[in-house]
Amino acid sequence: MTHAPLEPSTTQAQPVVLDVDTGVDDALALMFAVRHPGLDVRGISCVAGNADVDQVVANTLAVLDALDAPEIPVARGAEQPLLETARDARHVHGADGLGDQGLPASSRATFGGGALEMMRMAVLDSPEPVTLVPLAPMTNVALLLRAYPEVKQNIAGIVAMGGAVTGGNATASAEFNVWHDPEAAAIVLGAGLPVTMYGLDVFSQVVVEQATYEVLRDDPDPAVALAGRLLAHSHGVIRSDPAVGHGGLIGDAGAVCAVARPELLTTHRWPVHVALAPGLTRGQTVVDRRYVLGEDSVHGVDSLGHLVDVALDVDAEGTRDLFLTTIGARP
Amino acid sequence: MTHAPLEPSTTQAQPVVLDVDTGVDDALALMFAVRHPGLDVRGISCVAGNADVDQVVANTLAVLDALDAPEIPVARGAEQPLLETARDARHVHGADGLGDQGLPASSRATFGGGALEMMRMAVLDSPEPVTLVPLAPMTNVALLLRAYPEVKQNIAGIVAMGGAVTGGNATASAEFNVWHDPEAAAIVLGAGLPVTMYGLDVFSQVVVEQATYEVLRDDPDPAVALAGRLLAHSHGVIRSDPAVGHGGLIGDAGAVCAVARPELLTTHRWPVHVALAPGLTRGQTVVDRRYVLGEDSVHGVDSLGHLVDVALDVDAEGTRDLFLTTIGARP
Amino acid sequence: MTHAPLEPSTTQAQPVVLDVDTGVDDALALMFAVRHPGLDVRGISCVAGNADVDQVVANTLAVLDALDAPEIPVARGAEQPLLETARDARHVHGADGLGDQGLPASSRATFGGGALEMMRMAVLDSPEPVTLVPLAPMTNVALLLRAYPEVKQNIAGIVAMGGAVTGGNATASAEFNVWHDPEAAAIVLGAGLPVTMYGLDVFSQVVVEQATYEVLRDDPDPAVALAGRLLAHSHGVIRSDPAVGHGGLIGDAGAVCAVARPELLTTHRWPVHVALAPGLTRGQTVVDRRYVLGEDSVHGVDSLGHLVDVALDVDAEGTRDLFLTTIGARP
Amino acid sequence: MTHAPLEPSTTQAQPVVLDVDTGVDDALALMFAVRHPGLDVRGISCVAGNADVDQVVANTLAVLDALDAPEIPVARGAEQPLLETARDARHVHGADGLGDQGLPASSRATFGGGALEMMRMAVLDSPEPVTLVPLAPMTNVALLLRAYPEVKQNIAGIVAMGGAVTGGNATASAEFNVWHDPEAAAIVLGAGLPVTMYGLDVFSQVVVEQATYEVLRDDPDPAVALAGRLLAHSHGVIRSDPAVGHGGLIGDAGAVCAVARPELLTTHRWPVHVALAPGLTRGQTVVDRRYVLGEDSVHGVDSLGHLVDVALDVDAEGTRDLFLTTIGARP
Ligand SMILES: [Ca+2]
Ligand SMILES: [Ca+2]
Ligand SMILES: [Ca+2]
Ligand SMILES: [Ca+2]
Repeated sequence: MTHAPLEPSTTQAQPVVLDVDTGVDDALALMFAVRHPGLDVRGISCVAGNADVDQVVANTLAVLDALDAPEIPVARGAEQPLLETARDARHVHGADGLGDQGLPASSRATFGGGALEMMRMAVLDSPEPVTLVPLAPMTNVALLLRAYPEVKQNIAGIVAMGGAVTGGNATASAEFNVWHDPEAAAIVLGAGLPVTMYGLDVFSQVVVEQATYEVLRDDPDPAVALAGRLLAHSHGVIRSDPAVGHGGLIGDAGAVCAVARPELLTTHRWPVHVALAPGLTRGQTVVDRRYVLGEDSVHGVDSLGHLVDVALDVDAEGTRDLFLTTIGARP
Repeated sequence: MTHAPLEPSTTQAQPVVLDVDTGVDDALALMFAVRHPGLDVRGISCVAGNADVDQVVANTLAVLDALDAPEIPVARGAEQPLLETARDARHVHGADGLGDQGLPASSRATFGGGALEMMRMAVLDSPEPVTLVPLAPMTNVALLLRAYPEVKQNIAGIVAMGGAVTGGNATASAEFNVWHDPEAAAIVLGAGLPVTMYGLDVFSQVVVEQATYEVLRDDPDPAVALAGRLLAHSHGVIRSDPAVGHGGLIGDAGAVCAVARPELLTTHRWPVHVALAPGLTRGQTVVDRRYVLGEDSVHGVDSLGHLVDVALDVDAEGTRDLFLTTIGARP
Repeated sequence: MTHAPLEPSTTQAQPVVLDVDTGVDDALALMFAVRHPGLDVRGISCVAGNADVDQVVANTLAVLDALDAPEIPVARGAEQPLLETARDARHVHGADGLGDQGLPASSRATFGGGALEMMRMAVLDSPEPVTLVPLAPMTNVALLLRAYPEVKQNIAGIVAMGGAVTGGNATASAEFNVWHDPEAAAIVLGAGLPVTMYGLDVFSQVVVEQATYEVLRDDPDPAVALAGRLLAHSHGVIRSDPAVGHGGLIGDAGAVCAVARPELLTTHRWPVHVALAPGLTRGQTVVDRRYVLGEDSVHGVDSLGHLVDVALDVDAEGTRDLFLTTIGARP
Repeated sequence: MTHAPLEPSTTQAQPVVLDVDTGVDDALALMFAVRHPGLDVRGISCVAGNADVDQVVANTLAVLDALDAPEIPVARGAEQPLLETARDARHVHGADGLGDQGLPASSRATFGGGALEMMRMAVLDSPEPVTLVPLAPMTNVALLLRAYPEVKQNIAGIVAMGGAVTGGNATASAEFNVWHDPEAAAIVLGAGLPVTMYGLDVFSQVVVEQATYEVLRDDPDPAVALAGRLLAHSHGVIRSDPAVGHGGLIGDAGAVCAVARPELLTTHRWPVHVALAPGLTRGQTVVDRRYVLGEDSVHGVDSLGHLVDVALDVDAEGTRDLFLTTIGARP
């Protein structure tokens, strides 16, 4: 494996706000975002998802400690989805939502005013339009857009980990983040902002193989070593899946890689709807990939989805190498 | 192109009942079924779909005339789906549902007692269990199963053209036959019979290229010549679709090929649900292809789909050659 | 209590086909229908509902025995609803669906060809248009209308026990018969036939008080005595409901009374829909009683329901007296 | 008509926050709330509903001017419902949402920080627990509860105009405020707070007759005169409805009357759900009024609604008199 030398794709750092439910792969995403010179992390909002929101806040702060990160506003956000009850993913992310790595509790303080206030300020105070990067159920982002629609004026776009084109993980057809709060995802997709959907179809492609992550675990940099342990945890969970089971996934971190280097992603602009009706497709992202007129148009029953840049393919090796190089793994 | 010599895969002809909405590709399916020595077509039920049911009956009889087929019971079935209004597909299949080929009206009589009575008798009177082959909205089959559940005892299985794993044609997520009568499809999938789903994923793979179908059009056999004209019609409709636009599709006929030669199909047994809730996923066949436990199981909100043999791949060249050889195309 | 002398409201007996899930109150309805000189019961179709369909057939035949009824075609119909699984109401109707009265098994034969064939013949062979009287989940009637739409030409109308305007019994908003097979009810309401909905709002009004039904139990006529026992069973079930708990309900029998004497019913012609979407309103009959334009019209999201004669009020004493006199209770 | 002398039902003024979409009857509610000595209006949040939110703010300020009201924080809230697009009710409330009375524009300022911030502060800063009084689509209240759940600790309860037990106005089964933002209503009902539902069933009962409102129009107090004109407007809209058409409705004001004098209302504590599925019952409040066990319990498909104090009846004359006396109408 060779790692390409890091070249920032913009001369000035892009302002971003991350929305997380840290979460094994959110932790990897935080590492990448904090250490990438082309990204300016203006705030991190926490939301219930992989774990309850208080655990998510604690995990996020602990990861920032491991990174020895500068001060970044971290805010506690929604305790539960808009309509659903909070349903965590401990069977994937461990009892503490972070793979039970036993990280020391952080003494960092959180932003006092709550996630909405932090997000509003982080967006409106930014000299350049901000990219929102939801890596979790989109409750916070949806609340922000409905409570303070004026923020749209300074949002460059949204790059979200969420959704799937060809099959789900939380259910047969729905991906976890969208399934967890489908109404929030529908609000975000329908907000009229440029949205890139980094869904399961690419999420599952970026794998760090065992030989690599085992080396990381011994790295003297605590963040790199933590990355190694988290990738090992990921590998344990997905080992039985023949498609991705040969290593650990960087997961959410891939979406942040795509913010830094959009050229790693192959996207197609298609109409997307979030299925909300009760039943087995609830939380599915319905992507309309047809080339030929369908009966829905002929019989006047179609409805216009929101145009979204849907990620279909990713340069998996390039993304993996970018990730590893950026967090400081030794080549 | 070379055509393999035809070898029936069973020594005794399999009894089948076809359910059709003839339909350009239903016509190709009828040709194949009537001319394949391994299939014993015990009845043909007609249903509203690509055209209204009276037109479907007329088209079906006209195709049997073109085939110079022996007497086969043809019965008029449902005029409309269980809940939906009848919505034809003339934009694909032409004003008469059969590509407007101007076939002469047939003088063949239809079965007097209606489709249900014919299907019931065709199944119960067969010495060997019958394979039902729905190539249309499944209204007739659903009515049969609810009105006369005793027929299940002599049904070997159902091989249905319908559904899709990774995206629809009638809508973004639903295939035409299932979308047209979703409740009927749900009844058929849930009947406890072995079901093979020959969906869009394979339907779109079996293409007869232009050079080939143009030769067919000049064949002295009127059925073969008709096949050529129908394939040309098909090509005209799908020409703009980059994935399949290089020829005409045999479509429904592929499902009948799979009855005669199951080894041409690669299937996987997966749980399948038909989405019925109103909205954009109505009529979708939700196929659960996951290897790893999902949140629906963990949080107890999953529901067990019906195990279906879902066709994932087809030997496209083998199927095309089997089709051409069987209908009598000259090599 | 005084009973009005019986005067048939038509000079010639009205042909009716009853569809039943006998059922305590279906038994009362059978008694009334068989003994009313103005009604000509041309057939009785049985369906799964209060009990499984075989039990329903057995109960129906046993009631006809108790009535010493002439030969009437009784046919076994659907084993289960169109989409739902069969869910009986034994908690209301007893283990045998008929209040566990220990009726002797009947030696009457059932119609050989099944319910659809019987209903088709009973309707098409009648010299006068037939009134269908569904007193159960409408599966049989829906199958008949979809399989043999030609019967509509000789159907005078449908008087159905089912639905509710202001609140359900099976669920908070759905009445049992419609809830049990909502798709069937939607098919029946949408068939373009005149429909009278005898719903819960009137169903619960016709009460036979304890003093009266206790006298019936000692009647030498076994049918009348059975009626007394069934009314006592009904009283036991509903005793805790302050609105109706002062006696036993004649229930389904009231709908047949309204066939014989429509003037006992106050109806209003309103648009009615059956709610089919999954969730808490599934099976509700949505009756549009508005006088003033609604937002649904203004914003173009309304959908035209089917005009139904919805029973709002019933002459409860007149109906009770008609029932008692007709079955032969002594005044 | 005689008006009872006003006696405050509490010695200390109750703190309330009104949420409005002013709106003809919201204006009447504002008059009552501002002029009732037992109510302490700590804030008024505005939301899109009868008119767009900017118009609602303008209308609200203009009504406060007409009342010569003291300074009260008025805040601009949500521009649209959580999921639906904003759909106004101009056909009922006139082009300006306030009966086109030509009120002069106010020079009052709005609260700078938006509705959520105002509501949060109004609740948390109150020495006594606050009663929230939503008289409009509940978007603002839902956003508040999800963004700042800590406010629940100082909320005494919610008295909401919204919903219906026995039939809707926006659609056949849904009342306007709930139909406009069903997800918001579901969030509010599910928040675990004491909720009183002042729905259509009582809303339509409190009528001010023509002779009375015509006298009001000539009152020297501009607010009283405005009330007269607004009641005349209301009468014009509902004149064709036989149930309520004999005068103008005080509408939303009735809910505020019930805050001041709960004894005017007859309520019953029942489980209530908001129907969210797409289709004809979307936005319906499903109230479970059963006394007897239903099939949903027996078959394990019921779901527990939220216990709500549902208003079934109102002392219509007492409420009307309280309203008139409080706003300062001369007896
Ligand atoms: Ca995450
Ligand atoms: Ca077909
Ligand atoms: Ca019954
Ligand atoms: Ca209002």
